[in-house]
Amino acid sequence: MLPSFLSWIYSRMNTQQKMDPADDLGSSMFELIRDLFPICRSITGNGVRETLRMINSIIPLEMKEVPSGTGVFDWVVPKEWNIKDAFIKDTRGNRIIDFHRSNLHVLNYSIPVKGNFKLDILKEHIFTIPDKPSWIPYRTSYYAEDWGFCMSHKQLQEMKEDTYEVQIDSTLHDGSLTYGEVYIKGKSSQEVLISTHICHPSLCNDNLSGIAVNTFLAESIRSSDPYYSYRFIFIPGTIGAITWLSENEQHLQRIKYGIVTSLLGLDDLFTYKRTRSGNESIDKIAEHILKTTAVDHVVTDFIPYGYDETQFCSPGINLPVCSLSRIPYGQYPEYHTSADDLNLISVKALKDSFELLSKIVMHIEADRKYINLFPKGEPQLGKRGLYDNVGGRNDSKEFQMALLWVLNFSDGSHSLTDISIRSGISVELITEASALLQIHALIKELD
Amino acid sequence: MLPSFLSWIYSRMNTQQKMDPADDLGSSMFELIRDLFPICRSITGNGVRETLRMINSIIPLEMKEVPSGTGVFDWVVPKEWNIKDAFIKDTRGNRIIDFHRSNLHVLNYSIPVKGNFKLDILKEHIFTIPDKPSWIPYRTSYYAEDWGFCMSHKQLQEMKEDTYEVQIDSTLHDGSLTYGEVYIKGKSSQEVLISTHICHPSLCNDNLSGIAVNTFLAESIRSSDPYYSYRFIFIPGTIGAITWLSENEQHLQRIKYGIVTSLLGLDDLFTYKRTRSGNESIDKIAEHILKTTAVDHVVTDFIPYGYDETQFCSPGINLPVCSLSRIPYGQYPEYHTSADDLNLISVKALKDSFELLSKIVMHIEADRKYINLFPKGEPQLGKRGLYDNVGGRNDSKEFQMALLWVLNFSDGSHSLTDISIRSGISVELITEASALLQIHALIKELD
Amino acid sequence: MLPSFLSWIYSRMNTQQKMDPADDLGSSMFELIRDLFPICRSITGNGVRETLRMINSIIPLEMKEVPSGTGVFDWVVPKEWNIKDAFIKDTRGNRIIDFHRSNLHVLNYSIPVKGNFKLDILKEHIFTIPDKPSWIPYRTSYYAEDWGFCMSHKQLQEMKEDTYEVQIDSTLHDGSLTYGEVYIKGKSSQEVLISTHICHPSLCNDNLSGIAVNTFLAESIRSSDPYYSYRFIFIPGTIGAITWLSENEQHLQRIKYGIVTSLLGLDDLFTYKRTRSGNESIDKIAEHILKTTAVDHVVTDFIPYGYDETQFCSPGINLPVCSLSRIPYGQYPEYHTSADDLNLISVKALKDSFELLSKIVMHIEADRKYINLFPKGEPQLGKRGLYDNVGGRNDSKEFQMALLWVLNFSDGSHSLTDISIRSGISVELITEASALLQIHALIKELD
Repeated sequence: MLPSFLSWIYSRMNTQQKMDPADDLGSSMFELIRDLFPICRSITGNGVRETLRMINSIIPLEMKEVPSGTGVFDWVVPKEWNIKDAFIKDTRGNRIIDFHRSNLHVLNYSIPVKGNFKLDILKEHIFTIPDKPSWIPYRTSYYAEDWGFCMSHKQLQEMKEDTYEVQIDSTLHDGSLTYGEVYIKGKSSQEVLISTHICHPSLCNDNLSGIAVNTFLAESIRSSDPYYSYRFIFIPGTIGAITWLSENEQHLQRIKYGIVTSLLGLDDLFTYKRTRSGNESIDKIAEHILKTTAVDHVVTDFIPYGYDETQFCSPGINLPVCSLSRIPYGQYPEYHTSADDLNLISVKALKDSFELLSKIVMHIEADRKYINLFPKGEPQLGKRGLYDNVGGRNDSKEFQMALLWVLNFSDGSHSLTDISIRSGISVELITEASALLQIHALIKELD
Repeated sequence: MLPSFLSWIYSRMNTQQKMDPADDLGSSMFELIRDLFPICRSITGNGVRETLRMINSIIPLEMKEVPSGTGVFDWVVPKEWNIKDAFIKDTRGNRIIDFHRSNLHVLNYSIPVKGNFKLDILKEHIFTIPDKPSWIPYRTSYYAEDWGFCMSHKQLQEMKEDTYEVQIDSTLHDGSLTYGEVYIKGKSSQEVLISTHICHPSLCNDNLSGIAVNTFLAESIRSSDPYYSYRFIFIPGTIGAITWLSENEQHLQRIKYGIVTSLLGLDDLFTYKRTRSGNESIDKIAEHILKTTAVDHVVTDFIPYGYDETQFCSPGINLPVCSLSRIPYGQYPEYHTSADDLNLISVKALKDSFELLSKIVMHIEADRKYINLFPKGEPQLGKRGLYDNVGGRNDSKEFQMALLWVLNFSDGSHSLTDISIRSGISVELITEASALLQIHALIKELD
Repeated sequence: MLPSFLSWIYSRMNTQQKMDPADDLGSSMFELIRDLFPICRSITGNGVRETLRMINSIIPLEMKEVPSGTGVFDWVVPKEWNIKDAFIKDTRGNRIIDFHRSNLHVLNYSIPVKGNFKLDILKEHIFTIPDKPSWIPYRTSYYAEDWGFCMSHKQLQEMKEDTYEVQIDSTLHDGSLTYGEVYIKGKSSQEVLISTHICHPSLCNDNLSGIAVNTFLAESIRSSDPYYSYRFIFIPGTIGAITWLSENEQHLQRIKYGIVTSLLGLDDLFTYKRTRSGNESIDKIAEHILKTTAVDHVVTDFIPYGYDETQFCSPGINLPVCSLSRIPYGQYPEYHTSADDLNLISVKALKDSFELLSKIVMHIEADRKYINLFPKGEPQLGKRGLYDNVGGRNDSKEFQMALLWVLNFSDGSHSLTDISIRSGISVELITEASALLQIHALIKELD
């Protein structure tokens, strides 16, 4: 008799109870990251496709291709980039830089190059981080044709005057931009959009963490028969978001809630970045959860800089999309370096991030309105067996209050989530009370 | 020349000045409580009628009868309950429990019973408070037919194995539900609703205190020629409120302010519970008074649990009704026990409660709007003798400011009460300034 | 290519950099005050005309005359008052009080008088400040015909029983009330009103300070080719404001921002008094500047008492006019006494006041809206050379952010000033970013 998403809520609560840093879900997310780590991703190319195929093995996903040259708002889908090999050899033939050891070594989107260069010329194409002499930086040149290598500063300093054999065996050709979509149809056609970027090569927190959490969150919701429809998108940063928006412009009004996830693998404070207005339902929900759950967090207003929330929140799009991460954009030393690797992230952080997102989803599911069918005075609960000791529950008193709260505030302007927030009673209990009141025909869902 | 309610304000101010815990008004309220205390009240029956007749001897009151069986929203007016006698006799013929010693001894609304019971059977019908072994609890069973006795836990423990003669000489018959109404017609047909419950038997704070304060407040306002109309209702809890609402549904839109009073006899902190929206004029007024008067108090948001404010604030009724008491609902140890007696309450508490309600009424009276008839620039006060030393007052400077405040903010959207709150000048002085400005035809009342 | 008011902003910034208590502008303001100090001003008469002529020598000004007897709202323009001489002579012929030593000695607007008076009669026409025995008070009697002298209390106490020869050689005749107006036409017909009173005789802070600051502010804006139009009015207090409003009633809807300046010569905390609603653009701007600029200040709500903001904010006029001073109205010991002289005020205070007003003007100038012409997603800045290191600026990163902020919030509801406040980026940088985006046709001004 209970709505089916309630079962899902309860199964989720059970998951929480057995939560354990080493548990299955956390490990599964970590494993996915380990599998995805070696792939050389970029904003286009086979690395993206391979990544989406791995996600598809967990949750069925539709892979979309948008041809190079397609106009997308003010932008054009670029040529597709692929790479097979790249190296710098010294005169003794040693590969001192080898793409196969780390795909960060190549300036992402490098045009092909093959030749011999003296050190001083070659140096103009080498990027390092003098401050962090043992880390390789991650650099890109998507829209200005260029080539280059990234390496540790230590290694650069050890390079001797010599003539180096250099090759980048890449291709830039008319192909397509690839992205993935998981659509979970709910009872309502109103949608929750959950997005993450998939264009970074061997970097873990940024943003294999987001990919892993979103994949398993999609998988979890798919089994829950949800009320709202959910659309998970796995897209290259910036150009991917712009392409997706351009391709889906006529359907955007279905999106009622949106979350861009990123940087979810660090055991650091949750960072909630509000929607553009700061006044959307998703803001209400996320801030309530962060405030009432004992997690360290910061809440910041929207700024037009960060991940793809800046595209979703551009003034002509203006979707109610927030951003959730574990650390403000770029604010950790390992950001965009080879130190953002498997050692940086933790199973526990992934699990905590998943749980928080599950709580948000739970509150989104309850964010709908009912109408009290006996709104004049309290209906007589006693004659319906709903007064005191309802069904011998041991949370009888609080459940009684939940019934009264749902009855009083089911006035067409408060959702169950609103009632939960206002009353301080958990959304689970409020949802359960509403289910019982529906059974007794005391409330009905608002159209 | 001054509006007549002003005289009332000043008479009230004088009353305040001579305030004294032992003064007449406080004593009168206490006496009324003492007279009402012995009566066995319930949600229907002769105890209610007798109570209303006593109130009527102080302030003329209309007694209404609504027949048993009348449908009132989701409820039905129950059969009328009356009781003559009840006892438990031991085998030696001693009345160990006697209704005439305390009407709390009988489960309120007990069906008639007559017979002999062994102790173990009888015990199933006995209620005590093990935590408070010398107090008799107050219990009811209005809507489930049952019988029972309430006694001190000590007494129960002293009862020996025996066969007891038991009788409850009560009747449940088609009769009516009785309530009382005092209507004081003001200049305006807009109404202030002041309600209290009258269904509790020998209990003082809950709620003979509310009955006494409301009775004398009504009596005081009746002599004041008020601007607003006042409707005091004396009703049985829950079913009385629902019945009253059902009978008066078509007139509810006249109600602009509402207060449910209860638990006013304890010398404890004032407890103001906001209206459902928390954003009504009565909230503005009461919170301002509590903040600026040096009384200890708490302000809480509306919750759908408590006294009859929950009925007045049900979503299909949604009246601007607040609740005022001296302690949150049920939060004192003596609540619903024989210890809530004449010793628990104090003359001073009753008097302070009366004074606070008078202040609220004073601010309600001033909560109406005027229009400045010379709204462009300041009118020239000097040529009207209104500049400096108006009439040689010793509060001349503040009175001058009061004139300027009333002139500037009599713009159709600020009431005198709003102006008082914003300026920090007392509502008395603001009202007096408005009276003088009316005499000089500088402002007029807004239709 | 930059809007011309930007040059003005930069010139103002340069002014700030070379700021120095002894600099030219501060000295020029002080000199103007010194020149204006000896003139005997009142609400009408030649003192006002002479004052306006001196202002005119700095900034071209239109002098207006409104005839005595003209009805202005609830008031009538009074007869014009002029004075040539006034004295009290003792029997030895000594001018113990001489108008030419201080024009404060005469009750302002005294009717002519000539005669001999014994001390006790004369005393009825003498005003002193017993608390401050060496200061001469400033007193007026504009609307009740009277005559009198003001002197130090010490001098009064030294006066012996004697018959004194008394003369006030004044005239009260049908003439006119005089005020001055500086109108600086901007691109928009929407106006900024900046007003100060000019009716006080030899008093410096109240209000030669306001006259001097407004004069030089007008002079500065005139050279800046502003966006908004600016109207500076130099008016007698109260009756001047009422007269001006009455004469200009049909044009008031052009006024979008208004400031009444006064008491700007003390090195005391800035005192910002909000507009009547407290919710106007000028409030947003001034409070932001005060909060973010390191100046000591207080912000108060509007009260209907003070300078001419009370007229501009009367309910039938209700203009968005605030008040800025360096000390709340009348709250300094020298107020309305001969001690409010050239020694009381400082060049630095005048300069700081000027700078704060300049900042306010700068933010008013930027308080207009643009529309992003590529509002869907971010426009591609890279292909326009607007991505990173724009023009090799050393504030490149912040400028990049300024571009993104202007693009995202140029949505028709946020002005550049709003964007500056929300982003925390200076209005100068935001304005410059908007200029560059206009050049690249990425935004355009909202009609």
